[in-house]
Amino acid sequence: MPDSLIRLRDALRVFAAERDWDQFHSPKNLATALAVEAAELLEPFQWLTDGQSRDLPADTRAAVEQELADVLLYLVRLSDQLGVDLEQAAAAKMARNGEKYPVDKSRGSSRKYTKL
Amino acid sequence: MPDSLIRLRDALRVFAAERDWDQFHSPKNLATALAVEAAELLEPFQWLTDGQSRDLPADTRAAVEQELADVLLYLVRLSDQLGVDLEQAAAAKMARNGEKYPVDKSRGSSRKYTKL
Amino acid sequence: MPDSLIRLRDALRVFAAERDWDQFHSPKNLATALAVEAAELLEPFQWLTDGQSRDLPADTRAAVEQELADVLLYLVRLSDQLGVDLEQAAAAKMARNGEKYPVDKSRGSSRKYTKL
Amino acid sequence: MPDSLIRLRDALRVFAAERDWDQFHSPKNLATALAVEAAELLEPFQWLTDGQSRDLPADTRAAVEQELADVLLYLVRLSDQLGVDLEQAAAAKMARNGEKYPVDKSRGSSRKYTKL
Repeated sequence: MPDSLIRLRDALRVFAAERDWDQFHSPKNLATALAVEAAELLEPFQWLTDGQSRDLPADTRAAVEQELADVLLYLVRLSDQLGVDLEQAAAAKMARNGEKYPVDKSRGSSRKYTKL
Repeated sequence: MPDSLIRLRDALRVFAAERDWDQFHSPKNLATALAVEAAELLEPFQWLTDGQSRDLPADTRAAVEQELADVLLYLVRLSDQLGVDLEQAAAAKMARNGEKYPVDKSRGSSRKYTKL
Repeated sequence: MPDSLIRLRDALRVFAAERDWDQFHSPKNLATALAVEAAELLEPFQWLTDGQSRDLPADTRAAVEQELADVLLYLVRLSDQLGVDLEQAAAAKMARNGEKYPVDKSRGSSRKYTKL
Repeated sequence: MPDSLIRLRDALRVFAAERDWDQFHSPKNLATALAVEAAELLEPFQWLTDGQSRDLPADTRAAVEQELADVLLYLVRLSDQLGVDLEQAAAAKMARNGEKYPVDKSRGSSRKYTKL
């Protein structure tokens, strides 16, 4: 069985093709839609304390779950339109993050790597 | 071999634990970081035409690839902190989208489902 | 002397005209640029506690000040391109907010008006 | 009569004080709310062409007008909480933009100043 990111990519291709949506799915439009969904995901957290955000009421959590899904769907679709292998890109980024944030320098700190 | 989303989730858990970053990784902070990354992904597209966005110069494409990865990493981490199964959430959302956007009504249209 | 929002609007018109930028300043592109700037403004706050955000280091505060300005400039420019009187729109919105959030129901609460 | 930005600032101070909202109005939360509103403003544009965005239907335009107002209200409130004089910050930024984008180099170009 193929990997989840591949399956999603393929399902989204079919979804768009059936609706003739490739014409709207330019990388620019998809990047816009992704940013809009990311903000919708952020919306329920805006007035919460950190602690409250770790313990969401059931209805908020259900809404958040849908927004997480929306972000993933646009992310996979955008990556596909750009010909980017998302899994490989994520692995490369994690390796880079490991270099930017060495354990000894970043332990217990939330500073940006430029200020470590 | 486990699915890519599971492997990423586990790698991010280790990454955060080694750096004692769970204290900073509240859902609120992670949702904020995700929205910030989504906007960084959008930034190179802001003045491009649709057509230009389908044919990025190599250096822009490389930068975009890293931003796509950043979005995925925060998305996976946030889902983990909320106990959300991202793959299952995406599958459920795709089913819902299929209902909201029936092929015959949405074919060739970019209207929101509330206006179909 | 005209109001600050009018002066900014006029200065931005000249700035764009001198550079022949009206062609890029579609409402779509300006709304995108505004969202990108709003996220850049959010970026330095992402890992701060509430308390830390009320007491920024001088260099962060200076950077934030520039981002606040960027947001205002795009907001004024976008409103101008749409023919919206920003001051009047803000006054109308404040009146509406007063109705959505009556003092007695919203006092000391961060709930959305739909949940009051 | 005081300037519009000053009047808005003062009206928002009263609005928040009456509702005891200063406790929620940390710069972090306000920057988050601003980014959320900026994305709501972007939402109706996401699938439009440039041309369509210059000629919005009346109902979309009315919704956009309210989002423009929301962005301004949070921007003014956030600036106030940070002690930033928004008008002065905008004037300083315009001067800086004039230096970053000299007319002869930026005329008819949408390139970022780092690539001029």
